[in-house]
Amino acid sequence: MNRIYIEQLSKHIGKEVTLRGWLYIKRSSGKIKFVVMRDGTGLVQGVIAKSEKSDELFAKFEELTQESSFIMKGKVRKEDRAPGGCELDVSDIQIMQIAKDYPITPKDHGVEFLMDRRHLWLRSSRQHAILRVRHHIIKAIREFFDDGGFLLLDAPIFTPAACEGTTSLFETPYFDLGTAYLTQSGQLYGEAGAMAFGKVYVFGPTFRAEKSKTRRHLTEFWMVEPEVAFSDLDDNMDLAEEFLEYIVQSVLKHRMPELQTLERNTTFLSNVKRPLPRITYDEAVEILRKQGVTFEWGNDIGGTDETIVSEQFDRPVMIHRYPAETKAFYMKRDPKNPKLSLALDVLAPEGYGEIMGGSQREDDLDVLLQRIKENNLPQEAFEWYLDLRRYGSVPHSGFGLGVERTVSWICGLDHVRETIPFARMIYRLTP
Amino acid sequence: MNRIYIEQLSKHIGKEVTLRGWLYIKRSSGKIKFVVMRDGTGLVQGVIAKSEKSDELFAKFEELTQESSFIMKGKVRKEDRAPGGCELDVSDIQIMQIAKDYPITPKDHGVEFLMDRRHLWLRSSRQHAILRVRHHIIKAIREFFDDGGFLLLDAPIFTPAACEGTTSLFETPYFDLGTAYLTQSGQLYGEAGAMAFGKVYVFGPTFRAEKSKTRRHLTEFWMVEPEVAFSDLDDNMDLAEEFLEYIVQSVLKHRMPELQTLERNTTFLSNVKRPLPRITYDEAVEILRKQGVTFEWGNDIGGTDETIVSEQFDRPVMIHRYPAETKAFYMKRDPKNPKLSLALDVLAPEGYGEIMGGSQREDDLDVLLQRIKENNLPQEAFEWYLDLRRYGSVPHSGFGLGVERTVSWICGLDHVRETIPFARMIYRLTP
Repeated sequence: MNRIYIEQLSKHIGKEVTLRGWLYIKRSSGKIKFVVMRDGTGLVQGVIAKSEKSDELFAKFEELTQESSFIMKGKVRKEDRAPGGCELDVSDIQIMQIAKDYPITPKDHGVEFLMDRRHLWLRSSRQHAILRVRHHIIKAIREFFDDGGFLLLDAPIFTPAACEGTTSLFETPYFDLGTAYLTQSGQLYGEAGAMAFGKVYVFGPTFRAEKSKTRRHLTEFWMVEPEVAFSDLDDNMDLAEEFLEYIVQSVLKHRMPELQTLERNTTFLSNVKRPLPRITYDEAVEILRKQGVTFEWGNDIGGTDETIVSEQFDRPVMIHRYPAETKAFYMKRDPKNPKLSLALDVLAPEGYGEIMGGSQREDDLDVLLQRIKENNLPQEAFEWYLDLRRYGSVPHSGFGLGVERTVSWICGLDHVRETIPFARMIYRLTP
Repeated sequence: MNRIYIEQLSKHIGKEVTLRGWLYIKRSSGKIKFVVMRDGTGLVQGVIAKSEKSDELFAKFEELTQESSFIMKGKVRKEDRAPGGCELDVSDIQIMQIAKDYPITPKDHGVEFLMDRRHLWLRSSRQHAILRVRHHIIKAIREFFDDGGFLLLDAPIFTPAACEGTTSLFETPYFDLGTAYLTQSGQLYGEAGAMAFGKVYVFGPTFRAEKSKTRRHLTEFWMVEPEVAFSDLDDNMDLAEEFLEYIVQSVLKHRMPELQTLERNTTFLSNVKRPLPRITYDEAVEILRKQGVTFEWGNDIGGTDETIVSEQFDRPVMIHRYPAETKAFYMKRDPKNPKLSLALDVLAPEGYGEIMGGSQREDDLDVLLQRIKENNLPQEAFEWYLDLRRYGSVPHSGFGLGVERTVSWICGLDHVRETIPFARMIYRLTP
């Protein structure tokens, strides 16, 4: 298709073009009429001046309403003051459909009103900016792993058992096989992949039926989970910081116009360069106590405590070696202190909290068997996972990064609901 | 990480390297021992000859079993007869874990035996080849749309209503909101995206609870669905053939070694170049009747009939304008013959059947309302979708391509179960 889109207009200056799109806004200034069209790639102002056709064009101008669809022909003219550097001298307008009473007007609307009309809200420039950044983040994630020799390993969505507890699982009847649970994490499958391919990444939607109504919770969200064989916790932190730097710097390089639309202060983002600070859980606890927080060793670092710790740093901070009791059964214990897990969390700055979590995995069959028993997990369901320790076990590690929390942080948003085209939350299943 | 993987060895000839992996196979020839290691990126043969350390190395050689994990040091030597062009003169071996009785031996195993051990079967060279082709196909799909200016629009997995019928839906209780259904297609959401961004692609897992036990059915499978505003059926066919050519030629360019491992005859794949033949449903019926098939006009073209039609062509064939009765409510009728839908199916050659399906969508509000009534669909659930016809409706079209069927065809497989890391089928939910 040799169609011309608005974002390409600067390559067609002086030429007659045909554009297809929707009315963004229109206005009059004396005898000149201005028609701003959006076509999904950008905005351009069409100018209707007095001409032999202007009566007909003025009539069509009057007819057009916000979001009406139309085709506009005209000559592209350089105009440095215009957003894309071009304007169009309109020679013809063909109306496709007149939109009556488009519900999202330039005035302020409540969030629930907009979320109910998400299929239309997507047309606004703010949502365009966010979803373009989202797309770029996903592209950068895939580039990083593809270029690094990782195999994409799509983990199953339907799983026979829970990876971490059963209380927050969605479930569905599955033919004669009983119940299937929707995956919370592809990690266990990623581990099988790492033993087969050396390094893999799982990337897909994951599901949590948590009854949380916060600005950080969605019931379905996308997660990327690399897993590497012959990799310990230090290697894992090396990979995590290289990965995070790559994503953030790529967005800054390619999506600055979108960040400007969002009025994002990019100072903290520019700082996301290696090395990222690495502190132990013990050091994090020390920081909290110095800031006057009464914090008991052994508790998880959540919400406001995360913010207090991360505020001490000018870039994301990696916290490692957590109390084993707070962490999942598959995490390897620190050989120097068995009360600690070789776990890793990465906190984003500016109060955005945890965006990555990972660990070195337990690679000893007997220890893992014991952990499964301690956690009252059904050993039979994990036999295949135990096989990975029976047949060529190696030290291995990985982490997960939540896409929506990352988009929220990089875009500087208040809530994750705008980071995905159609958010699903405890009270929202539509549109 | 400056780790060296086997696939990079040809860049390190004459140098001492450390490799980490698993025993693929070992053998003796007189006083020389051969250790073939796999590390997920390839295979390399380590040679243990008589040396001051050879007693120790010979002892370790004896200990190693299939899939045992170990670290191997040595000097890289050019060896044109070896698969990667290199061998390793082994100077040290460090055993990590001895695998006892690895269940998948070089002898033949039944498919169910292997599917039950899918987490281990992934280590075999055939599965490596298939999943590398899968990865490349997914990469090529994203490249095609990213480079073409399409926005990635992740559609929701949880949907409040069915897109096409309710009999084959998986469902899950959803808090106080009743039941959520797992998506069968992101198309309707893609249409909202096309009106916002001009052109988008949805790419994610989709679900069908069909009780089909065939070589072409999975209960969860990945689908890519582009949707374009201001695009009619002809534009849609242009896009479909350009897309298919891009994917297939990209695999041929980059993944020939994998296709050779799979012993794939690539003649038909090489033919996948524009233009692809375009025939109407009526012409397809004529072909069937000429081939002696008793075929009633109005029926769907399925299974063996697909094969008969596609056998008349040396590349994929596009069939368009189907009887409206057999197609979905949202497809636009042919203005020249309202008994026909502006639908499109693409059949792969060599008996692989339908790999793409699409249509121009109904863009008239009143007609679409009537179709929803005729199909006894709940209008309320589609109000948001109808909004797309109320506010700036435009001609638009799109299609869906199933990833697993495409992998199966390109790799020349008998069954889709090997095209995805962990297949889910009516009788399989594990591992």
